[in-house]
Amino acid sequence: MSEARSRKVLVIGAGPVGALTALSLHRRGWEVEIWESRDDPRGKDTAPSNLRSINLAISARGLEALRSVDPSLAEQFQNEAIPMKGRMIHHTDGKQESQLYDPINGQCINSIGRPLLNQRLVESLPDTIKLRFNTKLSRIDFDRKQAYGSSPEYKEADDIGTGFDLIIGADGSWSKVRTAMMRMESRIDFSQSFIPHAYIELHMPADPTKPGGYAIDKNHLHIWPRHSFMLIGLPNKDGSFTLTLFIPFASLATIKTRDAASAFFREHFPSAVEIVGEKKLLDDFENNPRGNLVTINCTPSVWSSHALLLGDASHSMVPFYGQGLNCGLEDVRVLNSVLEKHKITPTTSLKLGETDPSLELALKAYSVERQADLKAICELALQNYTEMRSHVLSPLHHLRRTLDSLLTRLIPSSSKLATSLHLSLNTDPFPTKRVKGWTSLYEMVTFRPDVPYSEALRKERWQRDVMAWTGYVSGLLALGGAGVVGLSLARKWFDRR
Amino acid sequence: MSEARSRKVLVIGAGPVGALTALSLHRRGWEVEIWESRDDPRGKDTAPSNLRSINLAISARGLEALRSVDPSLAEQFQNEAIPMKGRMIHHTDGKQESQLYDPINGQCINSIGRPLLNQRLVESLPDTIKLRFNTKLSRIDFDRKQAYGSSPEYKEADDIGTGFDLIIGADGSWSKVRTAMMRMESRIDFSQSFIPHAYIELHMPADPTKPGGYAIDKNHLHIWPRHSFMLIGLPNKDGSFTLTLFIPFASLATIKTRDAASAFFREHFPSAVEIVGEKKLLDDFENNPRGNLVTINCTPSVWSSHALLLGDASHSMVPFYGQGLNCGLEDVRVLNSVLEKHKITPTTSLKLGETDPSLELALKAYSVERQADLKAICELALQNYTEMRSHVLSPLHHLRRTLDSLLTRLIPSSSKLATSLHLSLNTDPFPTKRVKGWTSLYEMVTFRPDVPYSEALRKERWQRDVMAWTGYVSGLLALGGAGVVGLSLARKWFDRR
Repeated sequence: MSEARSRKVLVIGAGPVGALTALSLHRRGWEVEIWESRDDPRGKDTAPSNLRSINLAISARGLEALRSVDPSLAEQFQNEAIPMKGRMIHHTDGKQESQLYDPINGQCINSIGRPLLNQRLVESLPDTIKLRFNTKLSRIDFDRKQAYGSSPEYKEADDIGTGFDLIIGADGSWSKVRTAMMRMESRIDFSQSFIPHAYIELHMPADPTKPGGYAIDKNHLHIWPRHSFMLIGLPNKDGSFTLTLFIPFASLATIKTRDAASAFFREHFPSAVEIVGEKKLLDDFENNPRGNLVTINCTPSVWSSHALLLGDASHSMVPFYGQGLNCGLEDVRVLNSVLEKHKITPTTSLKLGETDPSLELALKAYSVERQADLKAICELALQNYTEMRSHVLSPLHHLRRTLDSLLTRLIPSSSKLATSLHLSLNTDPFPTKRVKGWTSLYEMVTFRPDVPYSEALRKERWQRDVMAWTGYVSGLLALGGAGVVGLSLARKWFDRR
Repeated sequence: MSEARSRKVLVIGAGPVGALTALSLHRRGWEVEIWESRDDPRGKDTAPSNLRSINLAISARGLEALRSVDPSLAEQFQNEAIPMKGRMIHHTDGKQESQLYDPINGQCINSIGRPLLNQRLVESLPDTIKLRFNTKLSRIDFDRKQAYGSSPEYKEADDIGTGFDLIIGADGSWSKVRTAMMRMESRIDFSQSFIPHAYIELHMPADPTKPGGYAIDKNHLHIWPRHSFMLIGLPNKDGSFTLTLFIPFASLATIKTRDAASAFFREHFPSAVEIVGEKKLLDDFENNPRGNLVTINCTPSVWSSHALLLGDASHSMVPFYGQGLNCGLEDVRVLNSVLEKHKITPTTSLKLGETDPSLELALKAYSVERQADLKAICELALQNYTEMRSHVLSPLHHLRRTLDSLLTRLIPSSSKLATSLHLSLNTDPFPTKRVKGWTSLYEMVTFRPDVPYSEALRKERWQRDVMAWTGYVSGLLALGGAGVVGLSLARKWFDRR
């Protein structure tokens, strides 16, 4: 056995998940290198642009994950983000209706621009982490644990090379690390599935006549639900809103001219036309790209002691639960606690290239632990699209929300914020295995990092069953009652003859 | 517009599906070329080998597809195959129990070796089809509609090249055509999913003391169901049986020594040990490879007017319904009738490389038509594993089979063999859109090529619902009856006081 040396991790991708992973393993004492194919974001302008600003809703899971690595990070983002306390439903007639996310405790989700979040996270990385921007991964030699890449200065595919103990793919939906992993191991379950809807970003500029520039309420996520399609809006710091239109490709194909687009917006989104101005709205609609919405799952997300996928690389979801980023950051927290639990030291006496059985075991445990949760949130994100664009308009939806609130007050749920604040101190990633009391699905997913996604899904189904059986039983009792009354009436009638 | 010329199809893969596709398009007047990475199978020995003989069960759908291209082909295979009229269940105590597939009409499935089937199909191809064996596809230039490949004589990746109007990937589960297609078009849904079970082929030699050499009944598919694992056996012409053991990888990992293997077989399959002999059985078990079982789905299975996937390339399924090959051959029949319906002529005046809008429309129609059916049969194949290794042992299974038979006699199903024999004359691939009467799922899937797989699944679910509701209603009636009796007794009791 050779001398002990620091473990070396190569993180591919310096997006929010990659950056947090790097920071967290650096804190654990690992040697860390990051390759990112894009430019260095530090010191760049991150003001919301016209084209692809992409707003994120950071909520309890994301914040808890940041806190688990560095409590000051969570605090910083909470200060820079705009809290949204509920959905503002915009009806076609212009009426607005607020639906609070947490009527009882007033918890919020937080709007933040992806570029800003990313910039701040990269800025938080210490100098001892080696950062390579504009560097594209070209191939991985898993036998020798070497990765090769190229950059504008080093143009050949193998010009840049480095060794690693572990390579982490935080390189997004079309991950190259995943492709390389799947070439090594045939028994990996993989799926990619598109929804038939496109997304198009539009922009609502700040209105200088309004306080803070906000033409519509600053502290809401705005939705114009229209059943088969919808428009949403998230606030930016400068008073503008980033709007996103979600619409089936098939419907989009019928809007062929600017006149048709004008008619479409005037019919379905008259209030948005009025605020943004028709010319600006139609310009954005015509010029901005049509994005795809895909669900991707890769199981297991680890291979040997060599490779691990985090964030979108192992699970891309549609954006309708606002959990994509939160879930990716949570991956880092769960990984951290699994490494802790398995007592993975920051040093190793193995040579670079050798398989590490204890690290392999820990990575497998991570994958098994996380699998059901990732599947659950991908499914929930798909379901929530129908909720946002259609169910929010239904009277049954209101009834259910009211009933949920009532039951939550009557049968309070077990651990609350108190637990979540202390999560980072606990090495069990999810101390609450069974949620007690009554609690809504939205609350568990969004505000309860102590509840795994799969448990939230299980609990929700159980609550639905309880509701359904209550319905059956009361129906039967009513029928039975009617039967008894009927029988006695019949008896009386017979007796009279 | 240039002069009319024959359409050119390049088929990748000369397995059963590729060969039938080539023959069928040749009959339609297309110019056909085939590339196959393996050796020419013609004139080779196709006797069942020790290692990977792979028996197939060809049934009505496969035969109907052969018939739709050339009626003599179907006849030929029916003569060469061994009919199996039911399952023979081998209990641990040695008792054998026959369960007929079609107790009413006595229809059979047919055991045939894959090599023999493949050889016969390739032999049926006329000389005017250009056949290239030992030729590996290296890349496809979709813009110019050119495919490139290499062979032992022409070793460079681009040494062999040819143009095409349409390239058909009949190149199996790990299709290269599919990979190339997915590189061109991002919005393709794709999934690969492994079951945690392995398969291992074993061999039961002919017994010279028995008639025809058959140690167990020749006209059955033999199953040794043991709940979490099973052994099956299909007859060969020479009196031998090809046995396949299906077992979880996790269980396999616990059988570490030859002694452990001996104990395993003696405990669970004593009758197989007795017939095959322990040494031979354990030799096969130790030496033969462990195979993976995967479900693959690719939707759509077409791209532009340029590429189409058939058979395992677009849908690989686990082997438990015996439909993998039958479904692949049926792809060819459905494609044929779609081309017929869309009046795709054998000639075109387009230049090689141009997109053909009418062919594109026809291919899209094929993909849409077939999509739900492929999904259904992949799901049914997965479900049938539990049926074969466990449900066949349950008394409820017997009850259900008896009930199904009874109901089928009472409420006869609509079209029967009569329809299926005339299917090939009909340009509508599935004339029966709704099956009437009562019929079992197995019958629809296996013996009714006029019933699409998705309709079989729908009908089965409907029949299950009818059964369940019958159960509920009789339960309620019984409860109601008990209630009335109870009430009148109570009344009498009160009256007496």
